[in-house]
Amino acid sequence: MDHNSVGKITPQTFRFACAQAPMTLVSGHTMGPVDIVFETYGEPNADRSNAILICHALSGDHHAAGYHDPHDRRNGWWDAMIGPGKAFNTDRYWVICSNIIGGCNGSTGPCSVNPATGEPYGLDFPVVTIGDMVYAQRQLIEHLRIPRLFCIAGGSMGGFQVLEWALRYPDMVRAAICIASAPRLSAQAIAFNAVGRSAITRDPEWKEGKYGGRGPEKGLATARMVGHITYLSQIVLDAKFGRRLQSADRFSFNFASEFAIESYLNHKGSAFTRRFDANSYLYITKAMDYFDISRSYGPLKEAFERVTARCLFVSYSTDWLFTTSQTKEMVRAMLSNGQPASFVEIDSEYGHDAFLVEEEKLTRIISGFLTGADQGVTA
Amino acid sequence: MDHNSVGKITPQTFRFACAQAPMTLVSGHTMGPVDIVFETYGEPNADRSNAILICHALSGDHHAAGYHDPHDRRNGWWDAMIGPGKAFNTDRYWVICSNIIGGCNGSTGPCSVNPATGEPYGLDFPVVTIGDMVYAQRQLIEHLRIPRLFCIAGGSMGGFQVLEWALRYPDMVRAAICIASAPRLSAQAIAFNAVGRSAITRDPEWKEGKYGGRGPEKGLATARMVGHITYLSQIVLDAKFGRRLQSADRFSFNFASEFAIESYLNHKGSAFTRRFDANSYLYITKAMDYFDISRSYGPLKEAFERVTARCLFVSYSTDWLFTTSQTKEMVRAMLSNGQPASFVEIDSEYGHDAFLVEEEKLTRIISGFLTGADQGVTA
Repeated sequence: MDHNSVGKITPQTFRFACAQAPMTLVSGHTMGPVDIVFETYGEPNADRSNAILICHALSGDHHAAGYHDPHDRRNGWWDAMIGPGKAFNTDRYWVICSNIIGGCNGSTGPCSVNPATGEPYGLDFPVVTIGDMVYAQRQLIEHLRIPRLFCIAGGSMGGFQVLEWALRYPDMVRAAICIASAPRLSAQAIAFNAVGRSAITRDPEWKEGKYGGRGPEKGLATARMVGHITYLSQIVLDAKFGRRLQSADRFSFNFASEFAIESYLNHKGSAFTRRFDANSYLYITKAMDYFDISRSYGPLKEAFERVTARCLFVSYSTDWLFTTSQTKEMVRAMLSNGQPASFVEIDSEYGHDAFLVEEEKLTRIISGFLTGADQGVTA
Repeated sequence: MDHNSVGKITPQTFRFACAQAPMTLVSGHTMGPVDIVFETYGEPNADRSNAILICHALSGDHHAAGYHDPHDRRNGWWDAMIGPGKAFNTDRYWVICSNIIGGCNGSTGPCSVNPATGEPYGLDFPVVTIGDMVYAQRQLIEHLRIPRLFCIAGGSMGGFQVLEWALRYPDMVRAAICIASAPRLSAQAIAFNAVGRSAITRDPEWKEGKYGGRGPEKGLATARMVGHITYLSQIVLDAKFGRRLQSADRFSFNFASEFAIESYLNHKGSAFTRRFDANSYLYITKAMDYFDISRSYGPLKEAFERVTARCLFVSYSTDWLFTTSQTKEMVRAMLSNGQPASFVEIDSEYGHDAFLVEEEKLTRIISGFLTGADQGVTA
């Protein structure tokens, strides 16, 4: 038994935006009802001022810590960061994580049933933005009677949500932790997303999004393979796989998966299709492509003026998908406004994935930041 | 009329390895007959000591300079480098370029007819290596009664062939120019090739390589899209495309190709399927993955001991597929052996593609190197 675990967790569902009062999206479309699946760890204090919202990335979900069943092979995706005595210390904080809308793990998304037709939405699901995801999260936070989040934290696309919260609802966020993220995707990152979407929509099993059963598994697997390459640095790929062959020392002289890296990617691609929905992949990557602080709020310096949260920015030295220089753009904007922004570039070989695997360094930095933010509250 | 053009060119075909004496491949398989399609520019001198062999990259072919028809929209792929007064000066040198075996532009490859069955080879075509490609080129060079190549030059996978020539047939190569290449593919480069192959073989139209007609166009397009991203630097992607939308200022909120980079990649992917064969893509990328100087010839320092050619190595500052540090490994090996190796890293924003688009800088460097090598001959 792990005494640092939040233990057995049961996800909950919150429904809002009923048919009479649907949610209006950034695109202008309306949608309802909307379900949000979420988990909480730790307990609220008397005035609910100790809530921390954790935002997940592209392939994550609401199950951030603990386990659903003692026989689970894996705990929540950020279990090393959330629990008693951990970075997000559940002895002190009430931690919440919700599945984004557009996702495929319980919150309303393209595989949910469209009330207008009684069939899964498929491509009739409206295109959602990071702003829409955050609006939906806000409904949940109000439902939980949280007047203001003590902190909001997330990496990668989770960092987009953190930024959107701090910009859109400044009064609701006391502290913000934006990890391995950016004010917008680069052209290269959009390009990789475009390849992934293209692989899915070119798969004949996709059927314009109206697939039943297993769907465009091959296209989705290809998309995931591309993604995985971008999450890792050249250094870690060389160190972990190099040119090693998977099962023999001699070349096979055929087209079987032969190099260890090839076998790894094929495995990751196939495994992903068993837990993720292809249409959700389209919607979520599109939301990422659309995210652009400057487009929504003006030039960065001006945009950040509205932010009142203390901000911590973390980047990783070998992350080439969300680079340190992109993070620095935001830090520079805040500092030039005289706003409280902390910035750490963590030296890591793991590339973008570092925020999910190098918990020790991140724990020290986040613990320190939260202690400072906490004192800021009581001071 | 371009006075610097080699003018109208007619490709020729050389056949060797008849059924009675087939070619034995590195894998141990045999193959025959083997056709090599090639072009020549300029004229041989009396003792045929002025021949330069140009080696093409993954998607290139034997048509390196001039035009086939005055109405051609594009000249040969290295037309800016080959011609009267150009880097490879056809007033002085006899320049030859041949299509690699395994390719799809005339030389024997998986879409050629298998004499054993009367049907296209498909996957019955044996897996060929860079060594096999170079062996076949050597048969052509002997057929052309060239005792020794004055120079051999190529970029990317063309550089692999340059290196293989210099290592395998040292007596046949007087000077070698290896551009934007490496002693072996990195794990990341293998990973991108693996994604491309996976996209092709997962396309139901691939049919285990036995497709007739258009074949797995969607898979091939996806493979090409991935490739294109790796050929360009982040800098040039940002400068050329950034986050610009293709045809409107407002988001479409649908899954049409919307960002300019997305549209560009989709276009490049589709265009590629009209000129390239999917099985060839599998075979050629596999040959690239297999290339590894150290595996064939021992540690680099030891391997290069056999090289007698003067070598010029060129890398590009923003090339992340074939990095400067990979080129430096080879330069260091030669210099520590006291061998004549020149090295230039060209400052460029174009990434790996620079060797195909930044001809001016390359021309100055190659002209100087060839002049030196030429004097070396007459000295």
